[in-house]
Amino acid sequence: MDHLAHVSNQPNSQPQSQISHLALDIGGSLIKLVYFCRYDDNCRDDDELRSQNESLGSESDNSRPVLGGKLHFAKFETSKINDCLEFIHSMKLHLGGFHDCTAPSSDKIFIKATGGGAYKFADLFKEKLGVSLDKEDEMECLVTGANFLLKAVHQEAFTYLDGQKEFAQIDPNDLYPYLLVNIGSGVSMIKVDGDGKFERVSGTSLGGGTFWGLGRLLTKCKNFDELLELSHQGNNRVIDMLVGDIYGGTDYAKIGLSATTIASSFGKAISDNKGLVDYKPEDISRSLLRMISNNIGQISYLNALRFGLKRIFFAGFFIRGHAYTMDTISVAVNFWSKGEAEAMFLRHEGFLGALGAFMSYEKQCLDGLTVNKIPQRFPISVSSAGNKIYCSMNGKSNDNESIECTVYRT
Amino acid sequence: MDHLAHVSNQPNSQPQSQISHLALDIGGSLIKLVYFCRYDDNCRDDDELRSQNESLGSESDNSRPVLGGKLHFAKFETSKINDCLEFIHSMKLHLGGFHDCTAPSSDKIFIKATGGGAYKFADLFKEKLGVSLDKEDEMECLVTGANFLLKAVHQEAFTYLDGQKEFAQIDPNDLYPYLLVNIGSGVSMIKVDGDGKFERVSGTSLGGGTFWGLGRLLTKCKNFDELLELSHQGNNRVIDMLVGDIYGGTDYAKIGLSATTIASSFGKAISDNKGLVDYKPEDISRSLLRMISNNIGQISYLNALRFGLKRIFFAGFFIRGHAYTMDTISVAVNFWSKGEAEAMFLRHEGFLGALGAFMSYEKQCLDGLTVNKIPQRFPISVSSAGNKIYCSMNGKSNDNESIECTVYRT
Repeated sequence: MDHLAHVSNQPNSQPQSQISHLALDIGGSLIKLVYFCRYDDNCRDDDELRSQNESLGSESDNSRPVLGGKLHFAKFETSKINDCLEFIHSMKLHLGGFHDCTAPSSDKIFIKATGGGAYKFADLFKEKLGVSLDKEDEMECLVTGANFLLKAVHQEAFTYLDGQKEFAQIDPNDLYPYLLVNIGSGVSMIKVDGDGKFERVSGTSLGGGTFWGLGRLLTKCKNFDELLELSHQGNNRVIDMLVGDIYGGTDYAKIGLSATTIASSFGKAISDNKGLVDYKPEDISRSLLRMISNNIGQISYLNALRFGLKRIFFAGFFIRGHAYTMDTISVAVNFWSKGEAEAMFLRHEGFLGALGAFMSYEKQCLDGLTVNKIPQRFPISVSSAGNKIYCSMNGKSNDNESIECTVYRT
Repeated sequence: MDHLAHVSNQPNSQPQSQISHLALDIGGSLIKLVYFCRYDDNCRDDDELRSQNESLGSESDNSRPVLGGKLHFAKFETSKINDCLEFIHSMKLHLGGFHDCTAPSSDKIFIKATGGGAYKFADLFKEKLGVSLDKEDEMECLVTGANFLLKAVHQEAFTYLDGQKEFAQIDPNDLYPYLLVNIGSGVSMIKVDGDGKFERVSGTSLGGGTFWGLGRLLTKCKNFDELLELSHQGNNRVIDMLVGDIYGGTDYAKIGLSATTIASSFGKAISDNKGLVDYKPEDISRSLLRMISNNIGQISYLNALRFGLKRIFFAGFFIRGHAYTMDTISVAVNFWSKGEAEAMFLRHEGFLGALGAFMSYEKQCLDGLTVNKIPQRFPISVSSAGNKIYCSMNGKSNDNESIECTVYRT
């Protein structure tokens, strides 16, 4: 990346909008955006939201070359990339990249991007927004994002078992090694030994894309969240074949399998004289969710065991803070490890890659990013309807949050 | 099992049909039968088949208290258990159990049975056939059956990769330890250290019941074999999201994932504006088979690794000698182990449990079972239509075979 070496010499007098530092993680299903806004930046077109943000008050220290502000998070479906491009354009976020002063035309803007879509959609970004995507390695970004969140953000990690959420005290000096399991469309399992020290040790193709893909084919759900929501009311015992179904209602106690243990996911659908229309979408969703979450928990544990890792952090947009998903993963890890390993979750689960891409700006023009100890939590939802793109505050979802932070400029 | 202690003292003058020694393995999806027929037994009602069997000629040594004959294998769907009961009755196989001479009524007949259905359907067998099921532990039977086949039957185990089947030379003195993976409705993974020395170390609920259950819901297939057959013509790339789909056609070479690696099973179904009717059943079947076979291969390898086991034997009726299934499992084991571990398959894959239950007769009245070195292979298909039960020879399937063998009587 020699051509970027002198970027940190860019004058501070660049337009303020440039320091919004948009970074992207373009996955198979979702595009995740992270962008930084100074409190006095004009990177928002929602005045109400801005005034609310401002009302938090900035603790920025004017004696240091710092920029106080917030990191904002947003997501779009990859299949609706045009909505994303429009959002970026309307918010002028694409100006928040960096200039490559060594390139023939020094006004060329680069945006940090990771995920496969950084390759796939590079030409589209060039064409529509006139920016180049500066590609960062996907696994590296996930690890950088996870390390940042775990070290810097208060109450980022938590355990979830039997409906009980408990924030974990993470000692930044005793963080490594750990297993990072990122559940996107597919699943990556990464052994993390330090900053920039990691190895992708495993993965599985049964991930969020499988839940939503099979779910779409089996139900009439219109989107992932609707399918996930349905699972609340479902009963997996309708379709799953349990040990008790095979053993006539009794346990298979000798090997520790209770009558309610799932022997075969979707196994009851084989012998019934029922078709797809006879099953409730709620039950299908529940069985699917259980099957995939349990499988991920099991494979994760086996990999943690392999490398002697006691802590497993689960992230990625599959989870969405969903109670049953987290509970199933936790139970799976607990069951297979006989209580030896522990599943933990991250509040900003879906944005590890995008955050990691954002952090990579420090190679060019940011010296560092610190985060206020107790970040203000402002879930926002980003959506688009027709040509109108808007951001609005709501307290329902926890997957779009802003983090109060301070960016140092060199 | 004290009440059985004196059974070996039963006189040899029992009716010959009694020594047919029927044993059952009643699983969640299938009932597997193993029964022994002396060459001069009248346990068949298909004269043509019997004459063919007899034409093999018996090498029995008349100077020893042995019974030369064949082990026969048959299967029924568990949901059609009445067909199975009728078959047993018409063949008089239910008389091939043993008598408990210590019981109040010494003419009580016991049939060896394993699998959950031995518990679930015990009353039904009593009511319809007047026999009691003598229950044997499922895992123990699987292991006994596998050890027997691997030690005694020539060309039982084979590898399968890139369409190449290669028989393995198994040294009976160098068999242990190994991992036995039995894929029925669900999957059991058993570490085997010797005769009767084993531990069920893992398993997964994504098994044959999942393939067929999901397959039934997603396609209009009428049975498992039809669904399996369809997969031949299918292309999993239609529905699976590949690395190349995310990365714009390129590999993610840095971590060794080629463009054709499946990133997310069924992941393409999320973004397409397609419903279930727009997908070909062939493609659905192929993706399902790949998803489940690959997952089983991966979890098996991780368990083999955990215990330092180099050899993994895959059995169970999910496989059915199906090329693509075996190839996927082999590739998965090879991929994840980087060539360190090897997947092997068994010719009598579906009958381990039933064979193990059969072997347990030796506790009562059989001293041992030896198998002729080169068993004659006579695939038979057992089916039922209405009230007519028939057996017929055919060369198509390899999952119903007879093994020439010799049974010692005490």
